[in-house]
Amino acid sequence: MSSPKSPGPRPEPATVPAAVVSRLSLYLRELQHLVVEGAQTTNSSQLGERLGFSDAQVRKDLAYFGNFGHPGIGYRCDELISEIRRILGTDRRWTVVLVGVGNLGRALLGYRGFEPQGFSLAAAFDSDPAKVGTQVEGVEILAIDRLTEIVAERQIDLGLVAVPAAHAQAAADRLVAAGVRGIVNFAPVTLALPEGVSQVGVDLARELEQVAFAVASRLRSTES
Amino acid sequence: MSSPKSPGPRPEPATVPAAVVSRLSLYLRELQHLVVEGAQTTNSSQLGERLGFSDAQVRKDLAYFGNFGHPGIGYRCDELISEIRRILGTDRRWTVVLVGVGNLGRALLGYRGFEPQGFSLAAAFDSDPAKVGTQVEGVEILAIDRLTEIVAERQIDLGLVAVPAAHAQAAADRLVAAGVRGIVNFAPVTLALPEGVSQVGVDLARELEQVAFAVASRLRSTES
Repeated sequence: MSSPKSPGPRPEPATVPAAVVSRLSLYLRELQHLVVEGAQTTNSSQLGERLGFSDAQVRKDLAYFGNFGHPGIGYRCDELISEIRRILGTDRRWTVVLVGVGNLGRALLGYRGFEPQGFSLAAAFDSDPAKVGTQVEGVEILAIDRLTEIVAERQIDLGLVAVPAAHAQAAADRLVAAGVRGIVNFAPVTLALPEGVSQVGVDLARELEQVAFAVASRLRSTES
Repeated sequence: MSSPKSPGPRPEPATVPAAVVSRLSLYLRELQHLVVEGAQTTNSSQLGERLGFSDAQVRKDLAYFGNFGHPGIGYRCDELISEIRRILGTDRRWTVVLVGVGNLGRALLGYRGFEPQGFSLAAAFDSDPAKVGTQVEGVEILAIDRLTEIVAERQIDLGLVAVPAAHAQAAADRLVAAGVRGIVNFAPVTLALPEGVSQVGVDLARELEQVAFAVASRLRSTES
């Protein structure tokens, strides 16, 4: 489907740096914005400029996966969206369960940004009997004891861990035992997971740091 | 947007790509983990390896801001932590207010990861009279009408917007009018902000995409 650009073998997907994969999400979202704005084509300079990267960085990142440009045109937005979704694996739907229906869990159940990107929140689990059987954002809260059964029955791919830090490893262990293949962990701890189960941690302080930097930079430049 | 080569002046902070700033947060967190693990020094290879970047990338990113290595030693963890905090502006405390005490807002009020990185959640606002006057995670919920007064009185730097998408711009307008200088926006819309007010958007689908990629890559490699 994709052809390696320069001579030499394309790297195994496993060897693509995490930062490159993370930027694929940014390129995808920016391409989706461009389509909404009515654009049909774009290029590495425009994509880079909108995201604050050099055009060389954009080209180098995409070259890990193939050569998607057209001479004299650049990138066709719809085509590159399809290609990136194929690379990310989100050209099909992924089923996701949530463990932990506290405040963050409720927020995740109400988050409108998962579905358009290919993720369906299929079920949510909690250990609190008072929550079990209630509905949050149209999703029924199930007893944590039913996790194994539901993951198998609904062929769940991924898990979101939104329990307190002290319970995160136990929640992850249940998800792994039930057969999920990847976990997004919102608890501020690193999980010990077996080979073959992927993990991404979410660090909400990072965005505050980026805003702080922008503000601090402006203050420094007006002071000098 | 070209990257500076070694000789020549250091770029103005405003010209540093957002991706580099974002990686500073990762380096900082990894250095903090290393200190907890008992390490006193590290180097670009080790830092890069733990994060999935090349050592050249680590050196190039840090070179935007100065030369922090010591011949024969590498980086001193505590020193580099201080330097990165100084660069990010988090060598002082930042005061933050939250607008929107729904599920996500409650989760943010309970998030334990802000304080250690230098961010104090000083107040929270909501327009729902039923919530005003209650406490969430030790923070009193105030009427949105008091935002201007409180931001001035407590010298608030930054705002977190955690209201539904339809109300995000109005919340941001209030924050800007009150004098905050940066906003982290959790609503899935891009805010129109005046020059001089920084904005970072949070996209929770990105982490799911990264996990999906890791799982899809493994499936592809076992299938072939």
